[in-house]
Amino acid sequence: MRLALAQIDPTVGAIDENLSLILSHIERARRSQCKLVVFPELAVCGYSPLDLLWRHGFIDKIQKAQEKIRQASTGIGVIVGGITAQHHNDGGNLSDPSSVSDGAGTDLFNCALFFSDGALVASIPKLNLPTFDVYSERRYFTPGPGAQVVEFRGKSIGINVCEDLWIDDGPTDAQASLGADWIINISASPFFVGKGEVRRHLASRRAQENGITLFYVNIVGGQDDVIFDGGSFVTDPEGGLLYQAPAFIEGLFVVDTDRTAPILPPREDTIATARRAIVLGISDYLRKNGFSRVIIGISGGIDSALVAALAVEALGNGAVSGVFLPSDISSQESHEDAHALARNLGIDLIDVPISEVVAASHSAIREKITGLAAENLQARVRGTLLMALSNQRNALILTTGNKSEIAVGYNTLYGDTVGALAPIADLYKTQVWEMARGMDRLIPQRIIDKPPTAELRVDQKDEDDLPPYDVLDAILKELIEKNASRDELIAHGFSETTVDDILSRYYRNEYKRRQLPPAIKVSPKAFGIGRRMPITHRYRE
Amino acid sequence: MRLALAQIDPTVGAIDENLSLILSHIERARRSQCKLVVFPELAVCGYSPLDLLWRHGFIDKIQKAQEKIRQASTGIGVIVGGITAQHHNDGGNLSDPSSVSDGAGTDLFNCALFFSDGALVASIPKLNLPTFDVYSERRYFTPGPGAQVVEFRGKSIGINVCEDLWIDDGPTDAQASLGADWIINISASPFFVGKGEVRRHLASRRAQENGITLFYVNIVGGQDDVIFDGGSFVTDPEGGLLYQAPAFIEGLFVVDTDRTAPILPPREDTIATARRAIVLGISDYLRKNGFSRVIIGISGGIDSALVAALAVEALGNGAVSGVFLPSDISSQESHEDAHALARNLGIDLIDVPISEVVAASHSAIREKITGLAAENLQARVRGTLLMALSNQRNALILTTGNKSEIAVGYNTLYGDTVGALAPIADLYKTQVWEMARGMDRLIPQRIIDKPPTAELRVDQKDEDDLPPYDVLDAILKELIEKNASRDELIAHGFSETTVDDILSRYYRNEYKRRQLPPAIKVSPKAFGIGRRMPITHRYRE
Repeated sequence: MRLALAQIDPTVGAIDENLSLILSHIERARRSQCKLVVFPELAVCGYSPLDLLWRHGFIDKIQKAQEKIRQASTGIGVIVGGITAQHHNDGGNLSDPSSVSDGAGTDLFNCALFFSDGALVASIPKLNLPTFDVYSERRYFTPGPGAQVVEFRGKSIGINVCEDLWIDDGPTDAQASLGADWIINISASPFFVGKGEVRRHLASRRAQENGITLFYVNIVGGQDDVIFDGGSFVTDPEGGLLYQAPAFIEGLFVVDTDRTAPILPPREDTIATARRAIVLGISDYLRKNGFSRVIIGISGGIDSALVAALAVEALGNGAVSGVFLPSDISSQESHEDAHALARNLGIDLIDVPISEVVAASHSAIREKITGLAAENLQARVRGTLLMALSNQRNALILTTGNKSEIAVGYNTLYGDTVGALAPIADLYKTQVWEMARGMDRLIPQRIIDKPPTAELRVDQKDEDDLPPYDVLDAILKELIEKNASRDELIAHGFSETTVDDILSRYYRNEYKRRQLPPAIKVSPKAFGIGRRMPITHRYRE
Repeated sequence: MRLALAQIDPTVGAIDENLSLILSHIERARRSQCKLVVFPELAVCGYSPLDLLWRHGFIDKIQKAQEKIRQASTGIGVIVGGITAQHHNDGGNLSDPSSVSDGAGTDLFNCALFFSDGALVASIPKLNLPTFDVYSERRYFTPGPGAQVVEFRGKSIGINVCEDLWIDDGPTDAQASLGADWIINISASPFFVGKGEVRRHLASRRAQENGITLFYVNIVGGQDDVIFDGGSFVTDPEGGLLYQAPAFIEGLFVVDTDRTAPILPPREDTIATARRAIVLGISDYLRKNGFSRVIIGISGGIDSALVAALAVEALGNGAVSGVFLPSDISSQESHEDAHALARNLGIDLIDVPISEVVAASHSAIREKITGLAAENLQARVRGTLLMALSNQRNALILTTGNKSEIAVGYNTLYGDTVGALAPIADLYKTQVWEMARGMDRLIPQRIIDKPPTAELRVDQKDEDDLPPYDVLDAILKELIEKNASRDELIAHGFSETTVDDILSRYYRNEYKRRQLPPAIKVSPKAFGIGRRMPITHRYRE
């Protein structure tokens, strides 16, 4: 059978636009002689609308769009991620007024809707609603009642939604037991480096266990800090890869299931894949929020150089401008490197010296501002001047902080943290260097080679204040991504003093992370919607 | 029977300190001849530890503390909110590496632990795990298997946890059917204005329905943006109030159940209660985070006046200092009012004029900064100067924004939004006036009476840019707290133009709200952990 994987990039809440996108893909699939077209999870409203799901009228609007999709299914099967609702008045916790507007009185189901020839063939609700990492589906949805199989053009098809594929002895196996030849999984599966391989491995195992052909259709696009990478694919009953759609790209990908020779899975290079994710994250954030230009504080260091290079890759050099904000402490080398970078990238760069503003600030305050407070003041003057240009030019600031410095609070809140989006905030410093080395035609070698410094006091080097980045990053990865405890970190061979210092910095800087712009997620655990930490607490292990 | 309601204020993650607090309350209860002492939900670790629950070692540490509580239960029954864990290796979604560190491999139960005479009598897991508003318990906990009743000194006691009381035909009714004479509910129930009455009404209904005596023990204290108000109570089987502990105060409250005459429920004045919640929120935020002083930008307007008065109430005047940051636009009246306020409050106030810093900023940038960008620049210079003083003095900034301005984005990100905690960010402007009128011995009448202005351009008045605050606030309340749609707001009689203007401002300013400090919650729906909105979306209804 000929079918189409409609790997689309809808915008959250833009239901009319998403409907048009879906209808045009149905039309293209029909013209390509496809018998079936499959869209991702929550394709109609985008993933994830979060509390918009509780806005009165939001679900009605989605359901009207779903009606149009039903009507458009003449001569073709359409599977699309939508929402069904069941009203009830059984009380629940209605007696608690805090819950009244939080979707009380209605059960929502995150569904795969199967339309064909203008009729609803089946509505298959998701059974397993994830609540870890970036997910909070239990907040909004009710789990469906059980597995089912649908007959379509001689095939028994088990359709399920995202997490339902991941559960051992779960819906996929149940559908196979009910006689499914095919499993079609529609997903909104967030990217992290290596996720594509994890998904194919899982699908291959499910296919082999159950002797089924498995179609995996994933959504694509950037949504605040979360990137959906697409990369839809088809696995044969022996677990071989029959088809692989490209990642990070919207498209209608046509598959002929009569073709049987498996292909080789794509090799994913860690840093190259992270780079593509970040580029999509930047371009989608701007496009979906109605902006076209960005502005970046260029320091002559590696972080801002990489962010500028990524922005140019995402938006083109005409859309990116830089601001070099030197103080008395800034070196001539920084000035040269900033301008060399701008020349390489073909972006506009202006100099905005901060010394007189810093001096005026000291005079205005009258009482003495010293030490860290004086260092932060410089960074905040930079933030303020950069924001003035951002407002004046209607250009969003891209924040240049990396994951290592954010983890230990080696940054200035309202200083270098200002901005709309933080593209490399989920890259450890060692990954920043690695990614920059892959762009060394654009980023001057001297920027890559020189020791990192905040240039907030004379002769300052990061490694005077912090452990060497290879040690720091190794600890942070265990701490953040694996939740390694103090004892476990010490057992890994890191020194007690270093571990305690890093743990203390990590915990006490949560207040800064709470006020950061969205940090594009490329790891299993990023600083963003998938990590929820109290500011006020006294745990230090 | 004589028993004690131990309404304590633990600190999240401070397990050793919380243990000491619990042990000292057990000892006091024993000395008061109590047979039973009851602590709130998650008393051992504080509510809510959020993702700290996934830190390796965190649960072990809690369980060691629970062991000490068991050992301390000689001669007395102790009911305390703790955590039990069940390890499993059934796979689950372990194949998804994103979940590996998110508590996979272990089921956690949010439990009431009942110790007596050194033994664990019962461990009663919570059955209903809320996920609306500020709750995300499904992220961490597994629901318990079913209702049970415990025998203790001749009483059949149904013990349950927080949400379990709120569910109709839920655990409370099941326990009553199993013969419970008493229901003891341990809670961590967040405050909003009117919540005390809602709880007593619910408890009264449950008591009457089931003919039981109901003990409701609530945690107290501020945790980031959420305030727990305590206000523990006892209801008799006729639904009458037998005992009412005070709200917003930690204490051991001894109840003699042989006393039978019901008392009158306390009357709660909306604004006075909100004020007490905010005061507790400020003092607990500082104490638990290890700070003792605050600094506030005093403009001469009502918002900063109210925040300063609340800070003095929470911390004493010696701990509060103000900064008046006039520009060329600032009126003489603002200067007088700011200083009159400081005199009334007995707080230190310094003047830090911003004009020269603003002028130096314009010179540094060279290109013309005009209109809104120039207005924002002034606010950000204020933010920067205030932060310098905050850093230098080790004093936290209290942010002065109110809910109305935050809702429509009538504020400057990194300008007036800077700070560690936003005490009045859940008060509409009309409530700000109401609360200030109740503090008119402290807040000069002229500050209360004058029309509000941001003073960022000459002769600016808020109501030139916004609808009158009574209209704005009425719309915002329906929109935020009731989720009223565009159609519903228009049906309420608000003009289409106004509604569309407010909806547009509301939605497009989400990026600012994402970067706000914690906003102390006093309403059913605050800007904070209980509200999760995407920044990127195009829904406008």
